[in-house]
Amino acid sequence: MGLQQVSGFHDHGTSPIETDALVIGAGPVGLYQVFQLGLLEIGAQVVDSLPYPGGQPIELYPDKPIYDLPAIPVCTGRELTESLLRQVQPFRPGMHLGQTITSLSRHDDGRLLASTSQGKAFLARAVFIAAGVGAFEPKRLAIPALAALEQRQVFFRTSELDLTCPGTIAVAGGTEDAVEAVLTLSDAGHDVVLIHRKDAFDARQDQLDRLHALRQAQRVRVEIGQPTGVDIQNGEMRGLEISAADNSIRHIAIDRLLIRLGISPRLGPLATWGLALERKHVPVDTASFGTTEPGIYAVGDINTYPGKRKFIICGFHECVLAAYAAAAYLRPDQKVLMQYTTTSPRLHELLGVGGSLP
Amino acid sequence: MGLQQVSGFHDHGTSPIETDALVIGAGPVGLYQVFQLGLLEIGAQVVDSLPYPGGQPIELYPDKPIYDLPAIPVCTGRELTESLLRQVQPFRPGMHLGQTITSLSRHDDGRLLASTSQGKAFLARAVFIAAGVGAFEPKRLAIPALAALEQRQVFFRTSELDLTCPGTIAVAGGTEDAVEAVLTLSDAGHDVVLIHRKDAFDARQDQLDRLHALRQAQRVRVEIGQPTGVDIQNGEMRGLEISAADNSIRHIAIDRLLIRLGISPRLGPLATWGLALERKHVPVDTASFGTTEPGIYAVGDINTYPGKRKFIICGFHECVLAAYAAAAYLRPDQKVLMQYTTTSPRLHELLGVGGSLP
Ligand SMILES: Cc1cc2nc3c(=O)[nH]c(=O)nc-3n(C[C@H](O)[C@H](O)[C@H](O)COP(=O)(O)OP(=O)(O)OC[C@H]3O[C@@H](n4cnc5c(N)ncnc54)[C@H](O)[C@@H]3O)c2cc1C
Ligand SMILES: Cc1cc2nc3c(=O)[nH]c(=O)nc-3n(C[C@H](O)[C@H](O)[C@H](O)COP(=O)(O)OP(=O)(O)OC[C@H]3O[C@@H](n4cnc5c(N)ncnc54)[C@H](O)[C@@H]3O)c2cc1C
Repeated sequence: MGLQQVSGFHDHGTSPIETDALVIGAGPVGLYQVFQLGLLEIGAQVVDSLPYPGGQPIELYPDKPIYDLPAIPVCTGRELTESLLRQVQPFRPGMHLGQTITSLSRHDDGRLLASTSQGKAFLARAVFIAAGVGAFEPKRLAIPALAALEQRQVFFRTSELDLTCPGTIAVAGGTEDAVEAVLTLSDAGHDVVLIHRKDAFDARQDQLDRLHALRQAQRVRVEIGQPTGVDIQNGEMRGLEISAADNSIRHIAIDRLLIRLGISPRLGPLATWGLALERKHVPVDTASFGTTEPGIYAVGDINTYPGKRKFIICGFHECVLAAYAAAAYLRPDQKVLMQYTTTSPRLHELLGVGGSLP
Repeated sequence: MGLQQVSGFHDHGTSPIETDALVIGAGPVGLYQVFQLGLLEIGAQVVDSLPYPGGQPIELYPDKPIYDLPAIPVCTGRELTESLLRQVQPFRPGMHLGQTITSLSRHDDGRLLASTSQGKAFLARAVFIAAGVGAFEPKRLAIPALAALEQRQVFFRTSELDLTCPGTIAVAGGTEDAVEAVLTLSDAGHDVVLIHRKDAFDARQDQLDRLHALRQAQRVRVEIGQPTGVDIQNGEMRGLEISAADNSIRHIAIDRLLIRLGISPRLGPLATWGLALERKHVPVDTASFGTTEPGIYAVGDINTYPGKRKFIICGFHECVLAAYAAAAYLRPDQKVLMQYTTTSPRLHELLGVGGSLP
């Protein structure tokens, strides 16, 4: 086991972004990692699969209250994210959203080379894996040929679609999200086909009423069944193959496909990097939150060690010790000073604050 | 080494308070420890030497800003304390302030017996040492005979004095606090003697101006020198011996003494309990934050382990793991469930919240 060794960047169209620290995951722990690195004057680039920062709290419970963050008697997942973003702001991390780190290897100069699903590459002296329960990615259809069409004819969010392009759009899904997309696209004047395995949708009554009206007006069509194949001509998608419950098959002509099957975390890529894993978690040393690979740290829900509890507050502590360990690793010739934000003029300068109350 | 074993409570006038958990120290970490114990349905009693909760942030920097508490871009030491007290409130811990835990031993039934400087005793199944940099106690004069007079004729805070009693009050000290006490006592109509080793006071100009006026009016007298002895008759203090820089000695008649030499943390008692110490810190295991003594945990600034950093956030994490470890220790026959405050109906009940936003 161990990271793959590479000696060039020839796989990468663009030259990699060089950085002291690459933080994989912009959940609460990844964001606080950036802050702790900032206090130690280590610049960071952050990558997240989601098109917005915040991780589980923003994706799974944005409007639900959290009661156990210390000195915050109550806040929502969204409020937590907003406060962390505000706190991180003085350090202006590079944010690379909507893309997944798919590979991680060690360059022969010792640095770490990481690349994303969108072809970006990073050359980092230290990597902080704050990958939580995995990369939050939209659920895909089990049709391999669709992968090559993503972001051209196949999309996962309504906002990714250019609504000025004409043509028929198919929406796959049966939830509130899917129905909402259908209503939006139809309102924008598009021909819409909604594909779902049964003629029943898990949506709000007002959405269902509007859907019903659009079907009556023949502005929206519903296809009952599962997409099982794609019709491609000259590299372009022309239609889908739909299989019904009785195994009958039909083909429908479409120009674009919007897949709204929900989002779920996928450990996926991380498992292929050559890191030692214990039941899908990265074992770390509690003095540094370092992995067995020099310069690679793991913090938050993704790591494991004796006593580990998957709480946000635990991840925050891990960030502090990982930042100090990384500072010693990155600047071996310098003693890492421990400074309090309350009293250190240098930290006040970095944070852009006066030191007296704002 | 090891805790002293005892088999009765005969030393203690009153019968001890029985509790699941005793938390020594009401600093930020002690308070959050109470919260984490509360979530696991473990009741706690808290003791602190200071007459108010909050530890270092309230004692040393109440009005200074802290910038590194996660998701709190800025708050003062006082605001931190207030938020923690609000958070802890649903669990109504017993608070025993203004007294120091002086002894800790193991009762022969396995429980831990602790007693305070005010003669209170606790019999606890688990003890959490959150003693920070030590017990915050007023600095004393190096005159052993004064100890027996404390709270009768010798005091450390103006608020401890009964201002309706007549007589001369000596104030020892040279800072703002000492001068302020002199002004307050003089305003209340008392004869006041201010004792300091030189005729120069480290106070604000307005205080110095008022002090000067009172001296002119012969309402306040200043004695230059150090108190080196006490004159006692029939167990009552009648006067002090004052030594000047030239070694001359004089005696002044006083009825009460207010010592205002500042407050400083004193590891003191803890060092005598028989716990293993490493450079004045309690070594712990990072899976449980347990010490080598079963049922005794140490969290926050007082503990040490590989990688330890004395930050508030680190102490908070330690509380979580210590609470879970203690729950397993106290209820060995029950599996300790990990629950999120966001989603657990039982936690909502304990916290007295609806589960939807307040
Ligand atoms: C319903 C619910 C309620 C909860 N309530 C509480 C609570 O009250 N208190 C509490 O302490 N905890 C609670 N939790 C747990 C808490 O949300 C997690 O502990 C926390 O989110 C972990 O933060 P993280 O940053 O480690 O991971 P995450 O929040 O999971 O964030 C990880 C991020 O990394 C990204 N990522 C992963 N892999 C890659 C990759 N290869 N490339 C790019 N990006 C990647 C993901 O897309 C994700 O955004 C709750 C969890 C849930 C589900
Ligand atoms: C000027 C200054 C600025 C700081 N700024 C920051 C910052 O920006 N960020 C940060 O994370 N940290 C900061 N710190 C450090 C932070 O204050 C400490 O890490 C934190 O207070 C530790 O909390 P604690 O509860 O472990 O201990 P403490 O806050 O020290 O509280 C311990 C309490 O236990 C009591 N006690 C001890 N022994 C006994 C006994 N035997 N009986 C009864 N009571 C006892 C004490 O009286 C005290 O009230 C700063 C510290 C200082 C001095």
